[in-house]
Amino acid sequence: MSQIPTEADVLTMLDTLSNWGRWGADDQLGTLNFITPATRTKAAALVREGVSVSCSRPISTDITADTSFQPLRFMVDSGEGRDTAPLERTLQRRGAAEFIGMVFHGYTITHVDTPAHYFWNGKLYNGRSCNLITSREGAQVEAVDLLRDGVVSRGVLLDVATLKGRWLEAGEGVMPEDLEAAEQAQGVRVEAGDILLIRTGYYARRLREPRNPGRDGSPAAHVASMPWFRARDIAMLGTDTHNDVSPLSHPGLGNVVHIVGLVGMGLWLIDNGNLEELAQACAARRRWEFLLTVAPLRLQHTTGSPVNPIALF
Amino acid sequence: MSQIPTEADVLTMLDTLSNWGRWGADDQLGTLNFITPATRTKAAALVREGVSVSCSRPISTDITADTSFQPLRFMVDSGEGRDTAPLERTLQRRGAAEFIGMVFHGYTITHVDTPAHYFWNGKLYNGRSCNLITSREGAQVEAVDLLRDGVVSRGVLLDVATLKGRWLEAGEGVMPEDLEAAEQAQGVRVEAGDILLIRTGYYARRLREPRNPGRDGSPAAHVASMPWFRARDIAMLGTDTHNDVSPLSHPGLGNVVHIVGLVGMGLWLIDNGNLEELAQACAARRRWEFLLTVAPLRLQHTTGSPVNPIALF
Amino acid sequence: MSQIPTEADVLTMLDTLSNWGRWGADDQLGTLNFITPATRTKAAALVREGVSVSCSRPISTDITADTSFQPLRFMVDSGEGRDTAPLERTLQRRGAAEFIGMVFHGYTITHVDTPAHYFWNGKLYNGRSCNLITSREGAQVEAVDLLRDGVVSRGVLLDVATLKGRWLEAGEGVMPEDLEAAEQAQGVRVEAGDILLIRTGYYARRLREPRNPGRDGSPAAHVASMPWFRARDIAMLGTDTHNDVSPLSHPGLGNVVHIVGLVGMGLWLIDNGNLEELAQACAARRRWEFLLTVAPLRLQHTTGSPVNPIALF
Amino acid sequence: MSQIPTEADVLTMLDTLSNWGRWGADDQLGTLNFITPATRTKAAALVREGVSVSCSRPISTDITADTSFQPLRFMVDSGEGRDTAPLERTLQRRGAAEFIGMVFHGYTITHVDTPAHYFWNGKLYNGRSCNLITSREGAQVEAVDLLRDGVVSRGVLLDVATLKGRWLEAGEGVMPEDLEAAEQAQGVRVEAGDILLIRTGYYARRLREPRNPGRDGSPAAHVASMPWFRARDIAMLGTDTHNDVSPLSHPGLGNVVHIVGLVGMGLWLIDNGNLEELAQACAARRRWEFLLTVAPLRLQHTTGSPVNPIALF
Repeated sequence: MSQIPTEADVLTMLDTLSNWGRWGADDQLGTLNFITPATRTKAAALVREGVSVSCSRPISTDITADTSFQPLRFMVDSGEGRDTAPLERTLQRRGAAEFIGMVFHGYTITHVDTPAHYFWNGKLYNGRSCNLITSREGAQVEAVDLLRDGVVSRGVLLDVATLKGRWLEAGEGVMPEDLEAAEQAQGVRVEAGDILLIRTGYYARRLREPRNPGRDGSPAAHVASMPWFRARDIAMLGTDTHNDVSPLSHPGLGNVVHIVGLVGMGLWLIDNGNLEELAQACAARRRWEFLLTVAPLRLQHTTGSPVNPIALF
Repeated sequence: MSQIPTEADVLTMLDTLSNWGRWGADDQLGTLNFITPATRTKAAALVREGVSVSCSRPISTDITADTSFQPLRFMVDSGEGRDTAPLERTLQRRGAAEFIGMVFHGYTITHVDTPAHYFWNGKLYNGRSCNLITSREGAQVEAVDLLRDGVVSRGVLLDVATLKGRWLEAGEGVMPEDLEAAEQAQGVRVEAGDILLIRTGYYARRLREPRNPGRDGSPAAHVASMPWFRARDIAMLGTDTHNDVSPLSHPGLGNVVHIVGLVGMGLWLIDNGNLEELAQACAARRRWEFLLTVAPLRLQHTTGSPVNPIALF
Repeated sequence: MSQIPTEADVLTMLDTLSNWGRWGADDQLGTLNFITPATRTKAAALVREGVSVSCSRPISTDITADTSFQPLRFMVDSGEGRDTAPLERTLQRRGAAEFIGMVFHGYTITHVDTPAHYFWNGKLYNGRSCNLITSREGAQVEAVDLLRDGVVSRGVLLDVATLKGRWLEAGEGVMPEDLEAAEQAQGVRVEAGDILLIRTGYYARRLREPRNPGRDGSPAAHVASMPWFRARDIAMLGTDTHNDVSPLSHPGLGNVVHIVGLVGMGLWLIDNGNLEELAQACAARRRWEFLLTVAPLRLQHTTGSPVNPIALF
Repeated sequence: MSQIPTEADVLTMLDTLSNWGRWGADDQLGTLNFITPATRTKAAALVREGVSVSCSRPISTDITADTSFQPLRFMVDSGEGRDTAPLERTLQRRGAAEFIGMVFHGYTITHVDTPAHYFWNGKLYNGRSCNLITSREGAQVEAVDLLRDGVVSRGVLLDVATLKGRWLEAGEGVMPEDLEAAEQAQGVRVEAGDILLIRTGYYARRLREPRNPGRDGSPAAHVASMPWFRARDIAMLGTDTHNDVSPLSHPGLGNVVHIVGLVGMGLWLIDNGNLEELAQACAARRRWEFLLTVAPLRLQHTTGSPVNPIALF
């Protein structure tokens, strides 16, 4: 079994797993460089049934135990009462519209993290200064509009929860041997340019036990799996949790998967995914690979975007 | 040349083009019913080069001449000054995050309109009461989460601006004969289940002449083209404008493409698209069909969503 | 002891206590008509010590058990890191600023209710149609900008919690005999044009037992006291609660103090006040009257405003 | 006539006019220390007619030429259609409420600046680090809740626009001799603890010429008047502009009245006031002194608050 890295080991990963300079000094795309036209074409060839599945949770305005910032929806115009209103009033207005607002980072909304979301020792991925992310200007580099044309590649689901026959516990990390066991059980192999989705069962549990998920903590990929992600050259990592175990594995360092992944490797993340319907779709077909399209909003100067990743079988 | 429908003609369309009851009394999907697994599989087979192209405009916080509601971006945490800060402070916080907010309906943001966005005589598509869209609850029917698994189909671009060798003028409507001329010129035919994208050149003009686009008005598909859309059984209609000409063709009725389309036909719309890069990609390949993925956010009870539609060649 | 009014009694109050037409068909000010220059001059004469006291709760962004909508504060510019930044960066920006946002109605923020906040049978105070309060236009009548010059009058605190030696329970209403007992105990008499503040002790309890106040319900003035308020010609009513008992005294009708007060009487309300420091200031001086200034923001077309009412002794 | 200070002169003011340490190392109140119970009592004695006047502009959601951030108002519940709705629906809901949001700093909303709004060389008033104003925590010192009990004092209006018989031009600064001429013309003398309001006529002009005020710039008190403000020991300074001339008098330094005032002197500011009705009220009475109550919202950790200052004659 893999050893649990010490704090010093994790700091070493920032060097040994580093992708700084790998694609040039100007690179902002990091691991997305693994996705090529060939990757996309090959992934599209996986579409045989024409069935699409969302990997996103619903975005609700409810306050739950894991809400840090309440999502907002306010109607700027509604249809209220226009069914019984006199004609002249009905003719006056015929549409409904709304304001939406959210802090999508956090523990509830499915979203992409760009490398600009995290820094270490004042540096972003590829050595840029974190001072390029300011209150007024937002993220002036490594921002989500780099993904304007979407991330389209092969998606692979490793369903660790099904493998273990249980949902993972708070603080429990997915280890490299778990990933390889899942590969073996599912008959699939993660390859360069893949978007790897790992199911811990956390969201399934949250759906059943909504009362206090945030305070109980959550599972995630363990930082011990970072070398494995690096070796496989994955383009993006998504899970059904916040992508770092809580309670933290290395409280002296913080969210170590975010630090090693976003800062060191330039590895883009999908946080808070919903892999429930996807897991069912995969199991029903005994097939854990599919075309995956992740299409962030073209927000300017942001460190991420809410997304609804679509798997196509 | 097609005749310009009178007000009475438009009202008649609400009957003659109606899809109410066509897919049962409970249907909320409207023209999306035209998309089947076979449609999706066939569309995926169009992917031969692995090149993806966004159909979305950037979302900026700038106030422009056509801003009704200013989009918002506020950092809840930034990287500001953490490059020069002393170590104990640097260790304390390592991430950046933001609040985003917007009224996506309007004239600037690329977004999907659900049938709940419009009503006529107190009725939504398929005869539901518009009172189901309330300030407090939002859209209780025909809301965007119906599209949770994305809209995936063949996209077809009809580039009317290129056909005419100019951008269309404010108030100028795309007529059925324009659509057929474009089909002929491009060698493509719009079919059942397609997502039809029409380029009027409006957004190209807005990029070059940002000073006052909103007040000048905009082109769009003319309501005279609605029978054509109905005859071809398109699943969704997107343009590079707000989808109704302004000044209005029928000021006594309002946004008639929205009314006949959303209310009568249950025809979902993409407003304010960006078809510039797409038009170039199509022209370069002499190919105006592609796999198109539209993945709305899983907002609950909303009449639409900002989107970034991704074309894949 | 006063009888608890039946539902029918409450509905009768809408007639017997009505101020519709009392100050003309065009009136929107309702009970604020009781405040005259003479009232204000007399109130100012109460200032003898030059001590001012807030009657507002702090507005926090925390989510508490009684939060319906989380208040927002986002910095659009901060001072972060500008202490250690190099000079050229320090010179570049020297200010901090923030966005604030809130739904001030609710259970936590001290605010004014205008008559436009409530309606009954489709009517606002003085018989106007409630359809004048729309999603798009907001409150076109009886809106808070009527108070642009502030409400300045004598404030009188009736400290019912101190009188009873305990905080009132959830659902417990302050009855007319409580008000008269407090008057007698304190040696003060409520008169025409006064802003009456009633302390139930609810906020004191909330400060000590924050865990679940909203769900436990709250005390308030009982609707049985409405004839007393009418008889005394008070200009405004404020309490340390939401101004209607919960659980509701008349669940078939709703918030009956709001209905009879705002709609029938045109009686402006201050909800969710903080009367703790005020009660101490009054007790220390054995004086329960003071100059009170309530200065709503000059929001346009709103049904109220957050406020910080200032008592001056 | 006063000399225009050079950049070096302005920097010297940060020393010569400094109030750092004047009220102890822990002081956050700055010039508000000049207001004592005696000041308030004396100010209240000015109330002879019981007439109150707002010094605030209306807060509108319109986008104007000087809008940086559009103020927001969204109804969370309205009265729309409840006049014609069937009874069961009418009974279901009887209230209207709204969300409001704004960046109150800027050029349109009347607001208070706390000393935390500005810094110089990394320091806030009284030598605190500007790093105490962070994105996440907001203003941890010198925040607006220091004013929880309101600012109540004598207000004095110096109507420089009337004195000069014209509104001041963009970039034109009010000089000490203007202030003294106004004192003489009006027969009033600014004294310790006063809230000084200076009318430049800018807002009158903005009301008449709304087309482009922000780009034209604005007048304000000139930084040359800072020694005069210091000599008179004013508690607060308010004008009908943003409180610094634009174009800037010292572009190499920035908003020098803010820097010397907020940072050096701890002088609290009221920006973007409306002194039109006040000027009329003063002129009609030939009296330019009054009781002034400024009651900021009890926002936590903010660098200011929107306010509606109320003058009472």
